[in-house]
Amino acid sequence: MIIYSDIKKAFRVLESVVHKTPLLSSRTFNEMTGNEVYFKAENFQRIGAFKFRGAYNKISSLTDEERKRGVIAHSSGNHGQGVALASKIFGIRSVVVMPHNSVKSKVEATKGYGAEVVYCGLSTDDREKTTRELTDKYGYILVHPYNDEKLIAGQGTVGLEIFQDIKDLDYLFVPIGGGGLISGCAIAAKHHSSKIKVIGVETEGANDCYQSFRQKKLIKLSSVNTIADGMRTLSVGSINFDIIMKYVDDVITIKDEDIYPMMKFFVERMKILVEPTGAVAPAAVMKNVLGLKGKKIAAVISGGNVDLEILKDIL
Amino acid sequence: MIIYSDIKKAFRVLESVVHKTPLLSSRTFNEMTGNEVYFKAENFQRIGAFKFRGAYNKISSLTDEERKRGVIAHSSGNHGQGVALASKIFGIRSVVVMPHNSVKSKVEATKGYGAEVVYCGLSTDDREKTTRELTDKYGYILVHPYNDEKLIAGQGTVGLEIFQDIKDLDYLFVPIGGGGLISGCAIAAKHHSSKIKVIGVETEGANDCYQSFRQKKLIKLSSVNTIADGMRTLSVGSINFDIIMKYVDDVITIKDEDIYPMMKFFVERMKILVEPTGAVAPAAVMKNVLGLKGKKIAAVISGGNVDLEILKDIL
Repeated sequence: MIIYSDIKKAFRVLESVVHKTPLLSSRTFNEMTGNEVYFKAENFQRIGAFKFRGAYNKISSLTDEERKRGVIAHSSGNHGQGVALASKIFGIRSVVVMPHNSVKSKVEATKGYGAEVVYCGLSTDDREKTTRELTDKYGYILVHPYNDEKLIAGQGTVGLEIFQDIKDLDYLFVPIGGGGLISGCAIAAKHHSSKIKVIGVETEGANDCYQSFRQKKLIKLSSVNTIADGMRTLSVGSINFDIIMKYVDDVITIKDEDIYPMMKFFVERMKILVEPTGAVAPAAVMKNVLGLKGKKIAAVISGGNVDLEILKDIL
Repeated sequence: MIIYSDIKKAFRVLESVVHKTPLLSSRTFNEMTGNEVYFKAENFQRIGAFKFRGAYNKISSLTDEERKRGVIAHSSGNHGQGVALASKIFGIRSVVVMPHNSVKSKVEATKGYGAEVVYCGLSTDDREKTTRELTDKYGYILVHPYNDEKLIAGQGTVGLEIFQDIKDLDYLFVPIGGGGLISGCAIAAKHHSSKIKVIGVETEGANDCYQSFRQKKLIKLSSVNTIADGMRTLSVGSINFDIIMKYVDDVITIKDEDIYPMMKFFVERMKILVEPTGAVAPAAVMKNVLGLKGKKIAAVISGGNVDLEILKDIL
């Protein structure tokens, strides 16, 4: 299992290439919730989401020989863009496997960062099959979206940065998709504070980790249904699950319909764009699922790559 | 004429009540323009625009007796909200005179900050007449939107903060409405640097200061036509004009149609909401009106209170 020094090492690798994103706050939000809340704004990260951190750290850990072979990722969203941009910076080849119905803007963005896009079928199995075939044929190195220690260490720098800016947090809320972000952040949080509670947040329609956490075994759902597209994984990774069970204090859920009001608040009051998945942890604080009062809380905004159609819907 | 120490004094008054807004940057924008550009994000200021600074500084300078009488402002937008919030903090009465066709959301926001809204006719003359009548009748103290030294000193803290963060700027681009923001910022800029060029930016449809600057006399337009609603003043103030002639190096214009692409870039690439007036100075940098290369530039985003209908239009 990785430890805090791995995250610190990742931070030194990433320091010069990532944006140190700000902690944002809103008096209105604090008054509404009765807590002192800080939003870690990874929507301002390069490629518009935290995913660049893990992808870059992973690729930087490869040998020259491995890098020469090129990397592959399967992703319909931010992970693909993270791998594409990190590869571009290292000057290596990248292939991103995307479902053939992917949003055009995401495909264009991924290509724009220099990746070759290969289309596949819609199911997770399809994606994995296509990826495996390409890997077998061309020898690409897989950059897994969450079940990878180097990647987790990279995502953990989100947590490390939060504690650079603010020491005495009571709670840290982190969204859970495949579990890469929360496992890295939880290690960082527990290193810095013995009293902090780390809370994972999912939507009800993709509550695999919520179930896994309660049953203390890794549950894989047969399907998910949520507007938070970054949470449409059927289960967290095995590496992630072990870390979550060790360091995370609770996993909670919100409803899909709690997401839009949070996104709208971000747009109207805080003047920032947040994607549905990025609004999940803040929405849990807004709904005050845990009934907190007078607490110092950080919630991670994981990304800001919101489809313009969804944005219009919200407005 | 006010000097830098007035701005420094205003900063000490404001420090604990304003947000110190960040300087944002975008690699993509820098690559597109060939310059190193920093955006001073006053869209993150309280009430969503820099206007809170000047209003608060002005009200803080009043005597107890004056504050007891209450304050009045005429404004269809951010200045009214700034006066309303500052008054609320001081626990005094505020009246905001707004045209009867004002956007409902702006009226609601102004009321939401605790002001009493009085409607008036559409012309500047109507607004001033209504304001004068109320002032005469009730003894309110007028908080002018730009032609006031205490207010200018408050707006100048935007410039002061920029130089706290970054010392060696070549250029500072500032939007011009009534001239309060640029006159304060220009004094701050010239105090900190002898080499910096301060550039004022207007839209072609509201180019009163552009004309005044060239003719070296204060021109008042008979009408204006621009989507940048914060620039729909017929002329800058007399106090502002004197400062502009002394400290500003050039006044340039952009077209209204240059504004939307800049707003879209802010939304899509930088994940922030900027109102049309707030995008004017950045748009002049994007269009590279002055043909700059390799320069270190700051451009002020004056506010983020964009009408949701306009935002939908842009998307």
